[in-house]
Amino acid sequence: MESVHIIKVGGNVIEDKAALASFVRDFAALPGHKILVHGGGQIATKLGKRLGLTPQYVAGRRITDQLTLELVTMVYGGLVNRRLVAQLQAAGCNAMGLTGADANLLLATKRPVTTVDYGWVGNVKPDQVDTTMLRNFWNLGITPVFAPLTHDGQGHLLNTNADTIATVIARALAPFFHVNLLFCFEKPGILRDPSDDASVLPCLNRAAYRQLQEQAAVSGGILPKLDNAFAAVENGVARVIIGSAGDLLQNTTATTPAGTHILP
Amino acid sequence: MESVHIIKVGGNVIEDKAALASFVRDFAALPGHKILVHGGGQIATKLGKRLGLTPQYVAGRRITDQLTLELVTMVYGGLVNRRLVAQLQAAGCNAMGLTGADANLLLATKRPVTTVDYGWVGNVKPDQVDTTMLRNFWNLGITPVFAPLTHDGQGHLLNTNADTIATVIARALAPFFHVNLLFCFEKPGILRDPSDDASVLPCLNRAAYRQLQEQAAVSGGILPKLDNAFAAVENGVARVIIGSAGDLLQNTTATTPAGTHILP
Repeated sequence: MESVHIIKVGGNVIEDKAALASFVRDFAALPGHKILVHGGGQIATKLGKRLGLTPQYVAGRRITDQLTLELVTMVYGGLVNRRLVAQLQAAGCNAMGLTGADANLLLATKRPVTTVDYGWVGNVKPDQVDTTMLRNFWNLGITPVFAPLTHDGQGHLLNTNADTIATVIARALAPFFHVNLLFCFEKPGILRDPSDDASVLPCLNRAAYRQLQEQAAVSGGILPKLDNAFAAVENGVARVIIGSAGDLLQNTTATTPAGTHILP
Repeated sequence: MESVHIIKVGGNVIEDKAALASFVRDFAALPGHKILVHGGGQIATKLGKRLGLTPQYVAGRRITDQLTLELVTMVYGGLVNRRLVAQLQAAGCNAMGLTGADANLLLATKRPVTTVDYGWVGNVKPDQVDTTMLRNFWNLGITPVFAPLTHDGQGHLLNTNADTIATVIARALAPFFHVNLLFCFEKPGILRDPSDDASVLPCLNRAAYRQLQEQAAVSGGILPKLDNAFAAVENGVARVIIGSAGDLLQNTTATTPAGTHILP
């Protein structure tokens, strides 16, 4: 099967001019079919503050009211996505910036209200990804670049976690391709000791993950990322790595990745 | 030759919820290959004010400094473009939101500094439009929706007038298609008497345009629109109409348009 790369890059890289320039160069150099999914980081929060908007969180997740949706549409769907595409074009990558509404690529479902109303947040599943259209774009030489936004098919954009979008796209493509999924974040990988960047775990399986959680060695924002990573390897994605954006090429092309290889 | 429609819609429609809903429905119903180009209107200016940004104009054109470029990238390339796409999808039109950087569709040139430095503004010509890619998108059933942004191929987005983008795309497609170019604005057409909406000129040629200018019956923002319209009809675009967004279907499908038919 043909090999493809799905790369998620986080807000910390997006906000660091030098790190972003280096990442753009490396991503453009990555051979073959690929897709980039980006987060937005603190830019939306900072702009929101300047506009008098206070972000609300429940269990680490932002509540997306109408104004917050407009804010993330501007920042993630506009500023971050459009600039990234222009920079990739300059680096020789024929990028195209997308939300899930474009060409109906990611048709999501507004998260049902239970004890919490998350607002304009979208849940998306692998069978809601138009893999045929993604393959059409690849065949035209185009590299899709996704902002973390989906839509409900009824005229509303929805805020959707970028790790989840990358995972769902990877799972949807898994029946047709040898899919490599790479989560780039601010650390070199999953650390045995959170305070020691040299303690990268070369690999991590479900049992070891459970152990780390019991030791409280992993917590916070890394948990949903790991849940996504395990969901990917347990559903046909060939290779899942969590690592630093600076190690993009080693993590995608080397036999021994610099980051943490996620195993079932 | 196959007939295609290039529709420009202005900021006044974008900002009017009811007018926009009606326009979205009509545009979605328009048969055949089509492209939408939108402006952004006052939303960027209003948001800029809230952020303490004072827009600067020279000869009716906004000076695009770095912060203004970020503002229009967020508002035109993000908020307006992404929402419009979600609404078109709900209306059954398989829209895809683009700037000129996406798939390198509109490779522009930063406007040279002469007596005025317009800042991050792009000039774009018909030979800088990738018509092959636009046709590929149509063949995939996709309707391109352009924000008024281009790029310089060196990593920078550029602010570009939406009327100009629509005109340049129409001219680039003219050798291959019977191109219908429609400028939708707040008036029902070009008026003989600017204070009387019933005085729509059914048609206007160069000589009559010159006369109107001498009588000062046309001035301000309509002048660059008319210059674009005449550049289109004089360069192979089959049919150019200036009219109201509310008359979209009559202006595109009826033999007798409701708006003003521009003639060479």
